[in-house]
Amino acid sequence: MDMHPQRWGDPALAKPLPDAIRGLVDMAIGTADTPAVEIAPLPQTGLPADLLDSLRGVLGDDAVAVDDQTRRLRTRGKSTLDLLRARAGDLSDVPDAVVRPRAHDEAAAVLAWAVAHHVAVVPFGGGTSVVGGLVARRQGYAGVVSLDLLRMDQLLAVDKISMIATFQPGVRGPDAEALLAVHGLTLGHYPQSFEFASIGGFAATRSSGQSSCGNGRFDEIVVGLRVATPIGELRLGSAPANAAGPDLREAVLGSEGAFGVITEVTLRVRPAADVKAYEAWVFPSFTAGAEAMRKLVQRELRPTVLRLSDEAETFVNLAGQTNIGAEQVSGCLMVVGYEGTAALGRRRMITEALSELGGRPLGEQRGQEWAAGRFAAPYLRDAMLDVGVLVETLETATFWSNRDRVYQAVKAALAGTLGERTLVLCHISHVYETGCALYFTVATREAADPVGQWLVAKAKASDAMLDCGATITHHHAVGVDHKPWLAREVGPVGVAMLRGLKSALDPTGILNPGVLIP
Amino acid sequence: MDMHPQRWGDPALAKPLPDAIRGLVDMAIGTADTPAVEIAPLPQTGLPADLLDSLRGVLGDDAVAVDDQTRRLRTRGKSTLDLLRARAGDLSDVPDAVVRPRAHDEAAAVLAWAVAHHVAVVPFGGGTSVVGGLVARRQGYAGVVSLDLLRMDQLLAVDKISMIATFQPGVRGPDAEALLAVHGLTLGHYPQSFEFASIGGFAATRSSGQSSCGNGRFDEIVVGLRVATPIGELRLGSAPANAAGPDLREAVLGSEGAFGVITEVTLRVRPAADVKAYEAWVFPSFTAGAEAMRKLVQRELRPTVLRLSDEAETFVNLAGQTNIGAEQVSGCLMVVGYEGTAALGRRRMITEALSELGGRPLGEQRGQEWAAGRFAAPYLRDAMLDVGVLVETLETATFWSNRDRVYQAVKAALAGTLGERTLVLCHISHVYETGCALYFTVATREAADPVGQWLVAKAKASDAMLDCGATITHHHAVGVDHKPWLAREVGPVGVAMLRGLKSALDPTGILNPGVLIP
Repeated sequence: MDMHPQRWGDPALAKPLPDAIRGLVDMAIGTADTPAVEIAPLPQTGLPADLLDSLRGVLGDDAVAVDDQTRRLRTRGKSTLDLLRARAGDLSDVPDAVVRPRAHDEAAAVLAWAVAHHVAVVPFGGGTSVVGGLVARRQGYAGVVSLDLLRMDQLLAVDKISMIATFQPGVRGPDAEALLAVHGLTLGHYPQSFEFASIGGFAATRSSGQSSCGNGRFDEIVVGLRVATPIGELRLGSAPANAAGPDLREAVLGSEGAFGVITEVTLRVRPAADVKAYEAWVFPSFTAGAEAMRKLVQRELRPTVLRLSDEAETFVNLAGQTNIGAEQVSGCLMVVGYEGTAALGRRRMITEALSELGGRPLGEQRGQEWAAGRFAAPYLRDAMLDVGVLVETLETATFWSNRDRVYQAVKAALAGTLGERTLVLCHISHVYETGCALYFTVATREAADPVGQWLVAKAKASDAMLDCGATITHHHAVGVDHKPWLAREVGPVGVAMLRGLKSALDPTGILNPGVLIP
Repeated sequence: MDMHPQRWGDPALAKPLPDAIRGLVDMAIGTADTPAVEIAPLPQTGLPADLLDSLRGVLGDDAVAVDDQTRRLRTRGKSTLDLLRARAGDLSDVPDAVVRPRAHDEAAAVLAWAVAHHVAVVPFGGGTSVVGGLVARRQGYAGVVSLDLLRMDQLLAVDKISMIATFQPGVRGPDAEALLAVHGLTLGHYPQSFEFASIGGFAATRSSGQSSCGNGRFDEIVVGLRVATPIGELRLGSAPANAAGPDLREAVLGSEGAFGVITEVTLRVRPAADVKAYEAWVFPSFTAGAEAMRKLVQRELRPTVLRLSDEAETFVNLAGQTNIGAEQVSGCLMVVGYEGTAALGRRRMITEALSELGGRPLGEQRGQEWAAGRFAAPYLRDAMLDVGVLVETLETATFWSNRDRVYQAVKAALAGTLGERTLVLCHISHVYETGCALYFTVATREAADPVGQWLVAKAKASDAMLDCGATITHHHAVGVDHKPWLAREVGPVGVAMLRGLKSALDPTGILNPGVLIP
């Protein structure tokens, strides 16, 4: 299913803001109906006919598209900036053609064609980037081609002894789960983008999902990779782990299409989680809840899902709730989820620990409500944009001792830049023994130039992260948007390493130019 | 404490082969007293006096040594090949000088000096490499300097909230534990080389320890790195994990001194393991025991230590035992260890699972015996060499479904090459949800040319690993010895990545030339 070109997700699921929520948003931020968005006309393909013919010659006519709708749907990703630009009719980043390989060799053939003709190639999976990862530099190239991977949608191998499975990169989250379910298996990787994002995209961006507490980050479950690069084929993953030099898999993970096209991914799988339970807890404060999370994982007690909203996010979430009869709660809500037998085997010890650490159990109803709506938030963003409220998210990670400093600094940077009529909400949804991720949601009154408004606020928040020693991104990746901060984060020697890999693998620079590499 | 230049470990702990063991070895392999080894004279330093003077000018006189004993002790590592060459009086790999920085800036200054004068630099920690990681190419350089890191022996920072600690690289295993014990903390990293190897070496070689089942590989506990490179300083580790591009830490881990000198390592630490328990189990066969290991970790039930000997290793270990009264055992011995409260909290469930999976508990005595002798094996190798028995180890890792194939192929390659009077023993000591490491010990009658004899056998065993799709090394690293097989394992594109990083970080190639990079 294609997403709407100017909105998130399934067009059939788009809804206006419910009246009750709109009333609250109106009080806190103010709303105003915005004019209906026109579908802007698209520039013609800039690729000369002979180049298009030669590309069709490589992969066949039906694998190459230049029609408006196909190209429109592969223009940028789904950040709020992307949506604002699309709503404003700015389609300047549209690719000149979309090419759809079915297998590794076809992807490799496209790269050879692109090298020969110096055409920029943007690997495209689910199209859910929120960091400008699909916006290649056009200058200096004969054109820009979107390399759509969704035809590479096969589960290639399952090894139930080793509990590994090999996928083509274009398998979307739900399809991966359906393919594994036949074998009684699951991946258990549920990022917000789950319904649309692809296996290859998860790998290329170091995705982390809502079940990361128990199931790990996506990069932790990758055991093997096959990659088409301009200099040839790369196969990695001779063992779960080894000491055969630097782990080159870790150089491909997070490479965002700039080093090569991931054409196969071998992943650790788990027994299907036939039993699942989600429950809510309340803690007196964000700090008290965060401390409980820290101690829990440092005691090696991990549920599958572990999330904690700060006071503001807890208030907003409960205000938007419709179950009037439910107990009123003050403090901070935590969601604790158990997916599968192994996780449920730890439930008793985790429950005892959370109680001892100051939590009060609220039962399963609120937990199940969270699970039922776990992929819904991006639809709400569109409904908010429709009433003139700019909503965006950003995220970072740091060590536990630095958590409060980063939290305060990023909140202050956002509130200070965006001024009154701004809500800044935060939750912790990924935890490690040594630290955690902080995920911020911002809602503010749209200014006359919302793109400019957000760029300033985002820059201040990003500066605050780096000034505190935190990372520019825990799981959204770099794209174009985070590039200046990546350069600060890894320093000039780190940048030299990235450039060294880039020029080794992509000497003519055709792969996603302008993305990732500072 | 310095190790003996021609043997493993503390010279005071060297002992001849006990009579009982010698009797057994004599039956199985044959023994012959070998002549006492002479300490061969050392070639003079090849570095011109003006270069030595300029190096002394950089770091001070007392940081630079050219005397025989200091240079002799930094000649090669501790593989059996290294010992055989040293016993034969071959000191051709001796460094021209040993330089000992105290801090990052001094290490960086040595690199600047080495670049200016095109001198090869070999970073040297505990000197326990078993893969030729300390044998730099001499041709084309003004000389070879051993960069001894053992003066960089400080614990720089402890953060008990985040449970992380920052070390200088020259801290040896026991000293790291003593420094952490003051804070009630432990690292819990116990490779065979623990008593001599250093924090920097663990990081540079992707070490894995005997407690890896519960505590992870060394690369998994590294959260931050500071590195001196010829192009400047690199600092990595802004968060436990992130999506800020490829994880560059993973390019430094395993880089074996070829990309830079690791000058600080920030590590995840744990609460001191005040309580420890080790127990033995017996399984009917190696396959039955391996299957039990697999199912245990796939159910997410991890003790701290989990080891399984094959039939041959079980027989030899029990034959060498002195507790005559103990129950006779046939089958395969497993050692299961619990270090610390969190691991002991899982003991009941693990015990139930192991029983259900076909294991029979033998109690704690044999487990405690294993723990008491956990670092002793290398001393036995010297005693065996003294009676003309060549002993060496090699190791690999693969996915569970490939375990038996790799096991049979490597055993056959070794036995087939070395012929009669050869023992090949194997154990599994590192497990993952998706696979495991296989560790082989070989003992054979020394031929007239033992170096050549071993090179042929090792090549056949290495070919067998690669032919089966396994890795050339799970935790011994690459050095010079594994370089041809690394090239096969990662292929030409992987080699291009390594070379790309090498030329970005060390453009004049002064760092450990000839090591790691094919």
